[in-house]
Parts: sequence; C-alpha cells; structure tokens
Amino acid sequence: MSDGDRRAGGAGWRVVPIMWDAARGAVRLIDQTLLPTELKYIDIRSFDDMCEAIAMLRVRGAPAIGVAGALGIYLGLVEKAPGSAAEVFEALDELCPRMIGVRPTAVNLSWAVNRVRQAVERAASAATGARRSEPAELLAAALREAMAIAEEDAAACRRIGEYGAQFVPDGGRVLTHCNAGALATAGWGTALAALYVAQEQGKRFRVWADETRPLLQGSRLTAFELAEVGIDVTVICDNMAASLMRAGQVDVVIVGADRIAANGDVCNKIGTYGLACLAKMHRIPFIAACPTSTLDLSLATGDEIPIELRDPREVTHGFGRQTAPDGVGVYNPAFDVTPSELVTAIVTERGVVRAPYGPGLARIMDAAREAID
Amino acid sequence: MSDGDRRAGGAGWRVVPIMWDAARGAVRLIDQTLLPTELKYIDIRSFDDMCEAIAMLRVRGAPAIGVAGALGIYLGLVEKAPGSAAEVFEALDELCPRMIGVRPTAVNLSWAVNRVRQAVERAASAATGARRSEPAELLAAALREAMAIAEEDAAACRRIGEYGAQFVPDGGRVLTHCNAGALATAGWGTALAALYVAQEQGKRFRVWADETRPLLQGSRLTAFELAEVGIDVTVICDNMAASLMRAGQVDVVIVGADRIAANGDVCNKIGTYGLACLAKMHRIPFIAACPTSTLDLSLATGDEIPIELRDPREVTHGFGRQTAPDGVGVYNPAFDVTPSELVTAIVTERGVVRAPYGPGLARIMDAAREAID
Repeated sequence: MSDGDRRAGGAGWRVVPIMWDAARGAVRLIDQTLLPTELKYIDIRSFDDMCEAIAMLRVRGAPAIGVAGALGIYLGLVEKAPGSAAEVFEALDELCPRMIGVRPTAVNLSWAVNRVRQAVERAASAATGARRSEPAELLAAALREAMAIAEEDAAACRRIGEYGAQFVPDGGRVLTHCNAGALATAGWGTALAALYVAQEQGKRFRVWADETRPLLQGSRLTAFELAEVGIDVTVICDNMAASLMRAGQVDVVIVGADRIAANGDVCNKIGTYGLACLAKMHRIPFIAACPTSTLDLSLATGDEIPIELRDPREVTHGFGRQTAPDGVGVYNPAFDVTPSELVTAIVTERGVVRAPYGPGLARIMDAAREAID
Repeated sequence: MSDGDRRAGGAGWRVVPIMWDAARGAVRLIDQTLLPTELKYIDIRSFDDMCEAIAMLRVRGAPAIGVAGALGIYLGLVEKAPGSAAEVFEALDELCPRMIGVRPTAVNLSWAVNRVRQAVERAASAATGARRSEPAELLAAALREAMAIAEEDAAACRRIGEYGAQFVPDGGRVLTHCNAGALATAGWGTALAALYVAQEQGKRFRVWADETRPLLQGSRLTAFELAEVGIDVTVICDNMAASLMRAGQVDVVIVGADRIAANGDVCNKIGTYGLACLAKMHRIPFIAACPTSTLDLSLATGDEIPIELRDPREVTHGFGRQTAPDGVGVYNPAFDVTPSELVTAIVTERGVVRAPYGPGLARIMDAAREAID
C-alpha cells in the first residue's frame, strides 16, 4: 500500500472502507476480499461495478453496505445522464430495486437506497412552483444524501467510541470477537471504535482478536485494521479465550451487536454467548457496542430473534480445502443470543446503558426519537 | 475404500489405524494425512518408510506412534537379516536412536522402542546357557513385543470404553473435542471408546464434534471415524458449543486427556478448559477418559504442566491460505488445564474416579502397580 492510500484514510490515519472521491469522480473502497494480505483501494465508477462489489463482498458490514448502495444509486444516475426530472425518477425506478436485489436480506442496503430516493423526491417537490427542478440538482441531492448517510454513521460510531473508551483500561488487555470495526461501517466501527478513541487518549493496551470461525472476520479483518493503526493485536483461535481469562490475561471483552432486544439480550456473531459465559465465570466485564439503530424494542427478549443457519461448506470447505468427511452433518448458526444478565453494559452513540436494560434502552430510544422529531 | 479394507478392521468393523499383517509381511496403516477425504491403508515394509510415515504424521496419536515405532524396529531388523545375536544388537544400536529421533518429544515412541529392545535382550539372555539364541528367535521376540504393545493399548482402550459407556445417555447428545479416538491409539480410542461401547450396547445417541482449531482433529478425524461406524455425528465450530448447551442440546461432554495431575487437574487439547467452564455453567457432566499411563502423580496440580506453544502458522496459514495479516501476533498454545473442580469423573481402564481426586487417583495407580508386580 502506498503512503497516498494510507493518507486517503483522513487525518490521523484510520481505516475507512468506503468514501466518495470528488476529484476522481469515483467511489473509493477497500477490496475486502483481498484482506488480510493486500490493502487495495479500488475506484468504482459505475452502478454495475458497485453492484458487483457488494455482491462479491468487496464491501461488507451492514452500515458500509448501506453507504455503498447509496453511492451506487448516485453513480447510476450520473451514467443515465437524465435530461429531465421525469427521467431521473425513471432511472430511480430501475436502479433502486436492482441495487436492493443485490443483497436482499441486508436491511441497511434497502434503507439507504430508499433514503436516497426520498431525498431526490424532496428536492424535486421543493423545486416545483418557483421553477422546475434541474436533473443536476436532483443528482446533487442524491450524492448529498449518500454522503450524509456515511457521515451520520461515522459520527455515531465515533460517539460510540467516545462512550466506549472508558471500558478500555490503560495498560489492560481487551478481547474482541468477529469484526465490529471500521471495515464494517463508514469508519471507526462500533466495538473497535472504543479502541481507536482509547488509543487517541493515549491509553496503552493490548487486544486479543478471536479469529472467529467459520469466516475468520477476526483474523482477516479485525487484526488487519487494528495493526494498520499500530494497536498491539494478537490473533487467537476462538477456543483459546478461556485459558487466557484463567491466566488473568483479559481485562474486558468488547463486542459488537447485530440486534438487541428490549430486555437487553444481545444477538451477535456465533461465539459471543460462550465468551459472555466465560467472562462471567472469570469476573470480567462484558461490553456490547452498537448504534441505536441496532436496538429492536419490538422484541421482548432475544429468544424471539431468528438465528440464520448458514451453508455447511463455510465450516467444511472454508479455506479452499475440505476439512470434514463427505456428507457429515454440520451445524452452522451465524449468530447466538447472550442473555442480558451476562452483559455489563451496552454502549450506544447516545450513551451507556446498564441493567435494568428494559427502562434504560427505552429511555435512550425515546431520546433518539425526540432528536429526530 | 474396498470392503476388504473395511473388514481389515476386524470383527465388528471399527477403525484400526495400524496393524501387523503377517500374510503381507507388512505393517498396514491408515494414511491420516489423506483424511477426511480418503481412507487409504498403506503397506509399510521398511524401517525408512516407517520413519517417514511417523515424521509426516501419516500415523499420529501417542499410543499409535508407539506401536508404529515398535513395529518399525522389527521391520528394520528383518531388513538387516542379522546372522547372529551380536548382529541383532548391532542393528538395534543403530535403529533405536534413529527411530526415537523421528519425533523426539513423543514419550510413547521412545517408551515403545525401548520395550522392544528390552524384550530382545530378555530373549537373548534366556537363550544363553542351554543354546545360543538364533537371530530369528530374537526377531520373533521383537515382533511379539510390538504386537503386545498394540494389544495392551487396545485392551486398555476397550476397558476405558466399557467404564465410560455409562456416561452416554440413551437418546442423548454427547459433545467431544479434538480426536481422542481409535485413530490416535491401537484401536477404540479413549473418549470415543465410550461411544463405541455405548453403540454396541444398543444405545442411540448423537455426537457433536468440535472441529478443534487450529489443526481440526475434530472435523478431520473424529467426524471421520464416528461416521465410518455409523454413529450420528455433527461437526460444529468450537465457538458454537455454548449456544448448543444453552439450547439444551448437550447432555454430556466427554474428552480425552494428555496428562492428569495428582489432584485431578486435566491437561488436554486447547479449548477443553473453556468447554469445562461452559459445561459447569449449564450443569452438564464433564468427563475425561484416558489410560492410567496418562496420570502423572508426580505433579501436585495442573499448574506444573508446561504448555507447549506451537507455530503461529498453524493459526494463520493452516489451510494453505493466509488468514491473518503479515507479521501479526499469534498466541497458539497446544493445551490447556482444566481444574479438577470442573471435572465430573475421570475414566480409566481401571475404573472411574470421582472427587476427591487425590486419594482416588492414588488408589488406582497403586492397583496398577500391584497388577504389574
């Protein structure tokens, strides 16, 4: 990687997986399929290339996919070169469903694409009356909205980091699981944001990164992005965490979350629940960090969260080599649920919530709604 | 694999990783480097080929390596075609250190090689007086001793299985870790012996096999040998065990042991301690199965057991593909220690020991010594 690429990450180098490069007229993104062996930014200049990048997981992580999809819609509009507002909406009618269809289960993708569309609609209706809206103005509105999505996400992550850094003890050792990092977001990450802010605060600490079977997001991505900014990171296999805890080598566990129920139950990458149990047994704080968009107060408890079962081949053929006998049974859940009694604190961009989680999470969501209203 | 190969396993097909085939004049062994995708027996007819097979891990597991080394010495003696007792001992002087040097840290290898040598010495001294010992008689003594080592190991494993089967509940679900199975021994295995005997008893049960990072002995070997005999086995990643326990899907955890201290602390494959913690939290029995040769009563507690740290590349390059960034720190301990308070029972070929382990283990070792005396 060149120094230029490193600096592209912005002031105080950090990993930024996706950004709009106005000078190039392109979306720059890290091709995450090449990690951890190669850090390569690619320029995406067309709608189709962005669809391909999302489909091939060159960009992954819910917030990052949302940003990519939004920018992809903008690229598509530019390519169409619409001559009128009507042609802009014709283009959106075609592009939005195509983009959402690339990863139909990624809630953030459809949410972000719809935000861009609504922003264009708002710009068009604001223009009616005084004068007809120019296509160029509508395209600018689309780009502004895509960049706003990225900025809001990065800002929320940054605040999560600011609230979360208090849990990183100076001179301590942090264990994390999977990749709740900058690579999954528009920057900073969630669990890892706490580490980046703690680093800025001058704290010295070490990180144990669970490799996180079966897809190895910990060794491939977390270890990469922490090492990139000079944080002392050591990769372990998931089954090694317990003996480190017994040896007094873990001061805190910090993980992300995919969904949190009203009672504080945390759904996150498979393996998180076991870590939480081990943390409890060894009297180690267990922290979940996530934006309030991850809170789903419509779910009373984590038991209502459906657990996706994934392709057995991720376990048996995950490394380009078959590692289990033909036809053997495989159980491969993507997530597990950690009951809230094992969770020391939940860190969001609106502050830290502790038990009892029911009222604490409700309060934080009310505050979020008021801010929007 | 042909039916002939399956039958080679003996009455009531089971996996036997190594055996002397008198008709062929060869040692037949399963090339474990080809597992789990191919079950292939290879014929070993020379000392050098046996050294290569041990060095390349075609045969692995402490007891199985011992048997292989002993048979290798016999093959070497046959090749030398010694014309006198003196030439037999010359050959042993050359062969024994060479064989031991193939895997110098494998205690069972040097133990078995020395047993063969001592058996030849006994045969030679018994023959003096009445008549001079014939080289053929000495070679026969070497072969008898090698086969005795195999038979004793298989018999001990079988008895471990008979004592251990009581812990396999009919209709239940057993979780195991690594490969404490037939492939690691002269047959039956230790933890898995309990499953083979339970199967013979007509019990129906399911097995969860932890894949066991980093070397995947669980998915490669345990899943293979259980599936071979029709035991219902499902592979999971190590980090999935906790959520299965929470879901009530694990009735007992049965593992092997590499070393057990006088107080009952169990040293076993990395990941065992975490499983024992999780079993405790979920009120699931945790059973360790091993021959009494694994008991090391010279160690007061497991804290005295040195933990081997292995090559980081097992974690970062284990599957022929790099899965962590260049130069990142890696912690790769081979074993961990489970304190005896987490152990429900220790199963040996001389019976089942429960807490308090100190007197129980001492009693069983005294009984073993008396039997030898």
